[in-house]
Amino acid sequence: MAKPKNAFYAQSGGVTAVINASACGVIETARKNKNKIGKVYAGHNGIIGALTEDLIDTSKEGARAIASLRHTPSGAFGSCRYKLKSLEENRAEYERLIEVFEAHNIGYFFYNGGGDSADTCLKISQLSETVGYPIQAIHVPKTVDNDLPITDNCPGFGSVAKYIAVSTREASFDVASMAKTSTKVFILEVMGRHAGWIAAAGGLASTEDCEIPIVILFPEITFDKKKFLAKTDRLVKKFGYCSVVVSEGVKNAKGKFLADQGLRDAFGHAQLGGVAPVVAGIVKEGLGLKYHWAVADYLQRAARHVASKSDVDQAYAMGKAAVELALAGKNAVMPIVVRKSDKPYRWSIGEASLNKVANVEKMMPRSYISRDGFGITPKCRAYLTPLIKGEDYPPYKNGLPRYIRLKNVAVKKILKPFKI
Amino acid sequence: MAKPKNAFYAQSGGVTAVINASACGVIETARKNKNKIGKVYAGHNGIIGALTEDLIDTSKEGARAIASLRHTPSGAFGSCRYKLKSLEENRAEYERLIEVFEAHNIGYFFYNGGGDSADTCLKISQLSETVGYPIQAIHVPKTVDNDLPITDNCPGFGSVAKYIAVSTREASFDVASMAKTSTKVFILEVMGRHAGWIAAAGGLASTEDCEIPIVILFPEITFDKKKFLAKTDRLVKKFGYCSVVVSEGVKNAKGKFLADQGLRDAFGHAQLGGVAPVVAGIVKEGLGLKYHWAVADYLQRAARHVASKSDVDQAYAMGKAAVELALAGKNAVMPIVVRKSDKPYRWSIGEASLNKVANVEKMMPRSYISRDGFGITPKCRAYLTPLIKGEDYPPYKNGLPRYIRLKNVAVKKILKPFKI
Repeated sequence: MAKPKNAFYAQSGGVTAVINASACGVIETARKNKNKIGKVYAGHNGIIGALTEDLIDTSKEGARAIASLRHTPSGAFGSCRYKLKSLEENRAEYERLIEVFEAHNIGYFFYNGGGDSADTCLKISQLSETVGYPIQAIHVPKTVDNDLPITDNCPGFGSVAKYIAVSTREASFDVASMAKTSTKVFILEVMGRHAGWIAAAGGLASTEDCEIPIVILFPEITFDKKKFLAKTDRLVKKFGYCSVVVSEGVKNAKGKFLADQGLRDAFGHAQLGGVAPVVAGIVKEGLGLKYHWAVADYLQRAARHVASKSDVDQAYAMGKAAVELALAGKNAVMPIVVRKSDKPYRWSIGEASLNKVANVEKMMPRSYISRDGFGITPKCRAYLTPLIKGEDYPPYKNGLPRYIRLKNVAVKKILKPFKI
Repeated sequence: MAKPKNAFYAQSGGVTAVINASACGVIETARKNKNKIGKVYAGHNGIIGALTEDLIDTSKEGARAIASLRHTPSGAFGSCRYKLKSLEENRAEYERLIEVFEAHNIGYFFYNGGGDSADTCLKISQLSETVGYPIQAIHVPKTVDNDLPITDNCPGFGSVAKYIAVSTREASFDVASMAKTSTKVFILEVMGRHAGWIAAAGGLASTEDCEIPIVILFPEITFDKKKFLAKTDRLVKKFGYCSVVVSEGVKNAKGKFLADQGLRDAFGHAQLGGVAPVVAGIVKEGLGLKYHWAVADYLQRAARHVASKSDVDQAYAMGKAAVELALAGKNAVMPIVVRKSDKPYRWSIGEASLNKVANVEKMMPRSYISRDGFGITPKCRAYLTPLIKGEDYPPYKNGLPRYIRLKNVAVKKILKPFKI
């Protein structure tokens, strides 16, 4: 009997609180099928590791270490922002990948990322046919931006959504307490340059049994200063305070990012500010109200301590399903979450063809944004609520979460170096 | 037998994740001593409520609602930033307080706040003697700044410290994954304008079994751009990345806040930026490294979802002890945390005379800051570690923490209005 083919797994793009849970799903499932899958090699720093033959031998990690990936945020093997060019532009890179796969007897390619990596995954599968070296390329969905099509949602998003919803509720309670003599408007800047999914999650902080005045500034809605100030003013007059959740991608009528104010310091040096302080300035100037602002940045996508259980479960399930799809002989596919019902949230696992996933962005439907453009609709709430459901706390030691750092033992290089 | 005197309780200054736990301790303990303490009236929006006779009758809240205060961040009765002037400057305000207390048969004054409120508390106790209306004034310590003297620490601080330590660890894991092709320096701005206690907590993210390169910028240490860049450069060269935790209060050699860069937008309008983007600009200009920055702002002090159990326990214990001190006939005192040992952390409750607390700020000892000024010493770690120990999660419903909003039923006004 031929030696079973090894698998390659890599993490791509911005990491999340649960991408390692997908890695855990891939590796644990591969380990349960040793007769069909040999070792799982991980790319050191994503696809770059495959190009430079920097492979990590995950078989050197104990079962407990691999299990700990499930509760560890970030990318355990390193990720990268490196988009492979098109086949026409840089065929050498694709051929190098095949060369590395062949040299290490790799027959399975699991690529864990967003839209760009789905595209890469598809191309590798196509090339493998052309060059006659068989590779099953399976994409494992991941992105906090929630912009992959077909799947109900993208692992990584639910936990960011939970973090933003929880933080908005907490900060709003704080502002409400202070509003009599101090801060009346709290502004939170969140990720999501193109799509407002994350900003929308701020709207979840307000529920029927816990109403909170929240203004959401979506990247989908052109910023209208006058309307924004009127809305904020109205809410502060009614509730005594209000919270603003602003997407980093909000643009003005000229299509320019609101964050891009051409800031200069006293010496004339350009300063890269966020959008939150810009909105704060608008509130101060327009309404004269005291404000506070926060920029969550990496904190939101790394916040494994308050991850959504739905999200962790689905991230793991996607990794597991990817291996199962490979074992079932599939190629150029991505496992997806299929929503069966909202309440209770029931989901199953399906699959999508990569040619239907690559280069397609799922935007927020307009029907998810309220008529005035500053809030979420019941439809949006019904969609989002299940995604933040459930808590899945990491273990703690001395007051800090116990996140795993793997040994990341390098596989011996066989090939000549390759320059990227 | 005379009707037992009522108690007045108020929250003062910036709220915290656990100030309501102290309120819970006060009210639950008072309820257990109904023969000695009548009702607990809370000041609506802090001491302002006492001046304007806006009192909240906490007896209208069920036992379950009061118990829920233990896991609810912010100030349930509203807080305020309102410092009473000195007795000489505004005797009328103090006399008004006595008038309100007398009108509502209040014999106990529990004031939950920081240094300023300790001072107010002391003055009320002094005045009560002068005017011959007996009030026992007990201060309940609270401040995220951890700057009250005598007590081992201040309730509110431990939970902020935990949030900053956890967030710094999580974001550092994120940066480490991205560093190969993207962000190499992550900058987190934290509170603490005068004292570096909160910034120091960022240092806890790195432990013996999980080393993380962290540069801390303390308000106690004059910012030295050259040294800072050299340190950051060294760490990035060694580890591939580094995290910077910067206190909002960091100043340059001229004694000017680093955050105050005289920013102007394209129209020449002043912009109030944080210190994190300033440090980011320095890193970019000085080292040419890719950075990300976050400003935690209210998120850090409202983050009840990741509160420290030590902190919650002590906040409750301080509220309980305040009532017990009152019942023991004490006046012008504050319950304190007395540290018995670091490892295991053992503490008991003591008391401090308010004249030793009022207007005294506890600064970070220089021995807690490493020689180069960018880190914490083992002594500091030994002090801080117990304060973030233990988790104390709030209950959740549909993915969100279930924080209580009280009914806050107003007590009928008897007196003429008072203008503040």
